[in-house]
Amino acid sequence: MNLQLDEARRIFSGAPFITSLGCQLDQLDAGVCHSHIILEDMHQQQDGYVHAGVQATLADHSAGTAAVTLIDKGQRVLTAEFKINLLRAAKGQQLICRSSVLKPGRVLIIAESEIYTLQADSSLILVAKATVTLAVINN
Amino acid sequence: MNLQLDEARRIFSGAPFITSLGCQLDQLDAGVCHSHIILEDMHQQQDGYVHAGVQATLADHSAGTAAVTLIDKGQRVLTAEFKINLLRAAKGQQLICRSSVLKPGRVLIIAESEIYTLQADSSLILVAKATVTLAVINN
Amino acid sequence: MNLQLDEARRIFSGAPFITSLGCQLDQLDAGVCHSHIILEDMHQQQDGYVHAGVQATLADHSAGTAAVTLIDKGQRVLTAEFKINLLRAAKGQQLICRSSVLKPGRVLIIAESEIYTLQADSSLILVAKATVTLAVINN
Amino acid sequence: MNLQLDEARRIFSGAPFITSLGCQLDQLDAGVCHSHIILEDMHQQQDGYVHAGVQATLADHSAGTAAVTLIDKGQRVLTAEFKINLLRAAKGQQLICRSSVLKPGRVLIIAESEIYTLQADSSLILVAKATVTLAVINN
Repeated sequence: MNLQLDEARRIFSGAPFITSLGCQLDQLDAGVCHSHIILEDMHQQQDGYVHAGVQATLADHSAGTAAVTLIDKGQRVLTAEFKINLLRAAKGQQLICRSSVLKPGRVLIIAESEIYTLQADSSLILVAKATVTLAVINN
Repeated sequence: MNLQLDEARRIFSGAPFITSLGCQLDQLDAGVCHSHIILEDMHQQQDGYVHAGVQATLADHSAGTAAVTLIDKGQRVLTAEFKINLLRAAKGQQLICRSSVLKPGRVLIIAESEIYTLQADSSLILVAKATVTLAVINN
Repeated sequence: MNLQLDEARRIFSGAPFITSLGCQLDQLDAGVCHSHIILEDMHQQQDGYVHAGVQATLADHSAGTAAVTLIDKGQRVLTAEFKINLLRAAKGQQLICRSSVLKPGRVLIIAESEIYTLQADSSLILVAKATVTLAVINN
Repeated sequence: MNLQLDEARRIFSGAPFITSLGCQLDQLDAGVCHSHIILEDMHQQQDGYVHAGVQATLADHSAGTAAVTLIDKGQRVLTAEFKINLLRAAKGQQLICRSSVLKPGRVLIIAESEIYTLQADSSLILVAKATVTLAVINN
């Protein structure tokens, strides 16, 4: 298996929306992607918590990047659907995402993302969990 | 029933993340919220399509705003979970969202959001559909 | 387009689990399937309501049957994932399901199912709504 | 904390639909429920695989039972929504479910269920994964 780590790196950072949110890639491996966002005011909803859309974006994009590590050259992935549970109102210094592929496949890849907030005392709180279905596209 | 239309307006526009994305409110009614984003390069993923996270954010926030029209003074809503199906790769001039409450409730409100792209010939293409569960919080 | 109505009829009734639940087919059309179950004690959960699993089964199977009307000869569908919101505790004489395809496709078909209970006064109450992603398999 | 293990046992076995499917309880602990079904022809869909509705029922009911271990006397749970990914066509001797609570709460409890098939050689294959949102009801 030739892991598409370079392609995954390109995908993660090549999306203007991801750059504008400040998403940063931390770790890549076969079927795995770790990432984070340093939280600023712009990521908040009306009550000062991290907007569900920010969490969903990081969960989806990191899951897609984890999937890309497993596809063949010339293929790409598109999110077919995802579901996210927001477990707690999220506040902290960073939003940290750990995505991993639950089930690889030639047509569909299923990945999961766990979203944590990093607190001032360095502890992590699980704030969201997502399941993402990615369609593999042959160009 | 006293519709919380002013509160809904405040919620829609009071979220820094929503403002930074350029989300705009078009219409509010009992259990209904219509909104849109004028699409720019910053909303794209790596292949030039609208990022799933942008669609998810608009779907979630508009659903929450639709729910807020139905709650009591002093209450607020938090997204408990949502699921979104990305039906087609999305491209166009605007992203248009129509959210409506499927089931009101004292503890949970279920809403649906349909996301369309507005094309240059003024036609609309359905690109995503989301179901959003909102928890009603008593302050 | 050659609708696969005969094949859809065969699929609906050819599943032993569906027969054992008493699911019956009412109507078939392009991308549409209506069905029902006459409710008995065996469909209940511990508090006397219709079990979520019964509602999910009818929602999934009818959505799959709606999808089958649109595929080619020699293809079949498998549920890739579904999500169901149980909107109200369900009780009544019949469980009625209306499924329709939201987005056809060569690889994935997305369908929605609305589940109603039929009351003694002939009224229908919406008790659940599901979104179903079906994978199209080429044999 | 007084675990409601007796109540959980009663819930698991007190649902006629669960009994009719042959679901059996294997293990109960704080926020944990393991269960299984010995597979028969009646659990199949039209192609001989385990019907998605059977997997969904076991996933939902076991998740609910895991949640019941954590609630107070006089409370009960109702499934608000669930999402299940069917990862592989499922075939085997038994369907085995491992459910655990991801996030307890006074209003909502989020649980996950992993569904495996037990093969003739005693190996387990992960065939489905579900996320279940349970509403806590005060009688």
